[in-house]
Amino acid sequence: MDEEKVENMEPKVPTIDPDKILGYIRKKDRKALLTIFEIVPSIDIAEAVENFEPADLLYIFRAVPSEITADFFDELSSDTKEALIKAMTDKELVAIIKEQYADDVADTVIELPANLASRVLKAADKEMRQSVNQLLQYSDGTAGALMTTEYLEFVDTTPVSDVINEIRTKGKDAETVYTIFVRNKKREFVGTAGLDDLIFAKPNETLEDIMNRDVVSCYTATDQEEVAKMFRRYDLNAMAVLNSDSRLVGVITVDDVIDVMVEEQQEDLARLTNMEPSDKPYMELSAWGNAKKCIPWLIALLILGTFTTMVLDRIEKSAIFTALPMLIAFVPTLMDTGGNAGAQTTGLMIRGLAVDDFEPKDVLKVLWKEFRSAVIIAGIVAAFAFLWITIEQYTGIVNDAENFKDINIWSGNCWNVDFFAHTMKNSALISITMGIAVLFSKCIGTLLPLGAAAIKKDPALLSQPMLTTIMDVATLCIFLLMAVIFFPQFA
Amino acid sequence: MDEEKVENMEPKVPTIDPDKILGYIRKKDRKALLTIFEIVPSIDIAEAVENFEPADLLYIFRAVPSEITADFFDELSSDTKEALIKAMTDKELVAIIKEQYADDVADTVIELPANLASRVLKAADKEMRQSVNQLLQYSDGTAGALMTTEYLEFVDTTPVSDVINEIRTKGKDAETVYTIFVRNKKREFVGTAGLDDLIFAKPNETLEDIMNRDVVSCYTATDQEEVAKMFRRYDLNAMAVLNSDSRLVGVITVDDVIDVMVEEQQEDLARLTNMEPSDKPYMELSAWGNAKKCIPWLIALLILGTFTTMVLDRIEKSAIFTALPMLIAFVPTLMDTGGNAGAQTTGLMIRGLAVDDFEPKDVLKVLWKEFRSAVIIAGIVAAFAFLWITIEQYTGIVNDAENFKDINIWSGNCWNVDFFAHTMKNSALISITMGIAVLFSKCIGTLLPLGAAAIKKDPALLSQPMLTTIMDVATLCIFLLMAVIFFPQFA
Repeated sequence: MDEEKVENMEPKVPTIDPDKILGYIRKKDRKALLTIFEIVPSIDIAEAVENFEPADLLYIFRAVPSEITADFFDELSSDTKEALIKAMTDKELVAIIKEQYADDVADTVIELPANLASRVLKAADKEMRQSVNQLLQYSDGTAGALMTTEYLEFVDTTPVSDVINEIRTKGKDAETVYTIFVRNKKREFVGTAGLDDLIFAKPNETLEDIMNRDVVSCYTATDQEEVAKMFRRYDLNAMAVLNSDSRLVGVITVDDVIDVMVEEQQEDLARLTNMEPSDKPYMELSAWGNAKKCIPWLIALLILGTFTTMVLDRIEKSAIFTALPMLIAFVPTLMDTGGNAGAQTTGLMIRGLAVDDFEPKDVLKVLWKEFRSAVIIAGIVAAFAFLWITIEQYTGIVNDAENFKDINIWSGNCWNVDFFAHTMKNSALISITMGIAVLFSKCIGTLLPLGAAAIKKDPALLSQPMLTTIMDVATLCIFLLMAVIFFPQFA
Repeated sequence: MDEEKVENMEPKVPTIDPDKILGYIRKKDRKALLTIFEIVPSIDIAEAVENFEPADLLYIFRAVPSEITADFFDELSSDTKEALIKAMTDKELVAIIKEQYADDVADTVIELPANLASRVLKAADKEMRQSVNQLLQYSDGTAGALMTTEYLEFVDTTPVSDVINEIRTKGKDAETVYTIFVRNKKREFVGTAGLDDLIFAKPNETLEDIMNRDVVSCYTATDQEEVAKMFRRYDLNAMAVLNSDSRLVGVITVDDVIDVMVEEQQEDLARLTNMEPSDKPYMELSAWGNAKKCIPWLIALLILGTFTTMVLDRIEKSAIFTALPMLIAFVPTLMDTGGNAGAQTTGLMIRGLAVDDFEPKDVLKVLWKEFRSAVIIAGIVAAFAFLWITIEQYTGIVNDAENFKDINIWSGNCWNVDFFAHTMKNSALISITMGIAVLFSKCIGTLLPLGAAAIKKDPALLSQPMLTTIMDVATLCIFLLMAVIFFPQFA
């Protein structure tokens, strides 16, 4: 194999030219359109036609059979769907809805304005309408809202050969045929069988003989993040969703879970950067929509920053810092280092909780571990800071003009004991403050997210802004205290 | 259905008591151990026995057949695996390795010290050893390193009935039987067929008749993040990995992709909080290992912070800020707001790039969108800041002692025109600086990650620390400039 060559090969994905499709539509070339749908995945076609006029899009639905376009319809953006539904006749809408899965129809209905939503529900047949209405009742973010109601369920005494025959006839309507769900006579969910188990089975066996018992399952109210963790942990393809009577009411498939994982990840990232998460892709969000997600947090942080302003205003005018104004120049560095050290720990906690490395009840174990790390980190960072701040003073990057005007290595007059002693004291003061701030910040950074998780709140939600505020104020107080200890003559 | 009741129901997952297992081991109760392996998933058993002595663990492998323990072995932590392999006889090792998939053996070998790694390779049969050695050649983070070499491949002219028979006999050795891979006479990969397609097919059809052509596939060198995106976009269960001759050399399954997604997410979160990502779970990392991931970033940020210290030292001693020391108290708030606004945008960019909402080449479109948002955000935040800072001054939270000593609403002497004019000027100065900083920060926050992505670097890697440094210095410069404009008499 030619490694050099393979390095530069892009993965094989379909390429598609929107103008070509538009050409086919305008020429009413039905056959060419059908060929495209045969070889190009729906999502690629949906992206290519995103900016087409509704009238052009409508031709696609008239030219291509609805069992093929159902999936394509599903991949369109909510704005395009809305425009299309407005333009479609009732008959066309019925044809499309008929071919969809109930969970996808429910997702479409949620995004539509009320009048169009009711048109869609009217277009659905009775069974579909019931399923959709049922799905719409579950709150967003639960297993109920995520599940599909199209799945294959059999009684445990069914012979394997009957199951396979049934799959052959009814399988195309189910969202997955790779997992078969099994119930007992009392209609309780009792296990699953993989399609491969059916293939491997002997002809005279029943589901009871081959099914997996004691499989993991969840309830309609289970949080979707919990569902995603279970899929990951147990490498599932599909999972049963039960009601409170232990009856199967729906099924979650792995592709929906992958979308949940991305959604949850996007949410964590948004929280960490102090933004409201958005459920729309970036390009679909308006400038104002985007601004609305940012402004509340910036203003909240601004208000929290008042404490810092207040304390800094007092400290800065204190006798000791008036005598040593150079020290004020180190305030941002001290605050940043403390904040960064704490943010690292907060990030670790959010990640650890997300992948179940530990739980809120492990707080003491985790705190002890973070504390030991923090001692090492604080020691090394403070030692480095001592050196670095000494260099900053000797090179004149900062200048203690009140006490040693324009003394640095370039002026050649820095080799005196007083300057040396004063410089060392400054360096020690700042680096010790930094060390304590790091230590303190890592402990707060452990406790905030674990505390939030313990009371079932999103650990990423408030940890970061709280940490910044607490650390800014705490760092200033530690700095003042240290300054008084190091320079009592100015206090 | 009783919604109230279902709200409080925890998902059904197995519970297992480590002491019970240890009891069975000590009593050498082989039958009880077998029952546990029958009903509890391997990962739960692996976690329960994590702290057992190697001798106790070894009994499990002696008592339970290796086709059952192979999966369990795979779920153990690398430290436990190491201890076990040391304790096992060659024969026991051979039995375990024989039942494993080549990609899992490769993952184990990578983590082991050299002498144990070679023991494992020696225990593998010739075919397995070749597969493992081949897999070990691919660099970490590529499709090659992620794929398995155990899959089902057939020539396109094979009748469906032959394929099904073959699956019945050989299927158990493949990592997935849900997707069948098809090649032509020239040994080139030409398509896939789902197990369901086989079931739905008529008996006399061949793979050629039912397979999906033009399916997405990747090459051994394709980045694993790219692979994850393709799985998500096309809702795949398995994907073909080709060499440079378009021949199938491996297969990636969806469960491995889910692990990649979590890994990539953890990496992004680590980068955003200025840490080196870790490939070990939090609890397995030592205090020193943890510290090592934090220290380099803290020191790098400390060095970058030198610019801020230098500029602040100069500005603070300038005539204008000596005359108006109160303004210095707002420096952290100004820096924080600028930094936060930019971090929001950086976060948006990292997220958008991760889910392919846009690409680096869309930079102008994205920048224009962010700029319009930024104008709105800067306007509203500055307007709020104006109000808030006025309140801070009137209530004496900050005090312009040099110019208006102890004047605030509590002292009752604040109703004079001079104080009002000066207060308004301070508020305008700070809020305009803040508005400009937000605008500037959002633009830098767009350009840094998109620039990094354009040169194929991780957009999260340097964006955040660079942004903080640039914004701290920029904010100070804008602040000085504005102060000179607003208070020329002190300049």
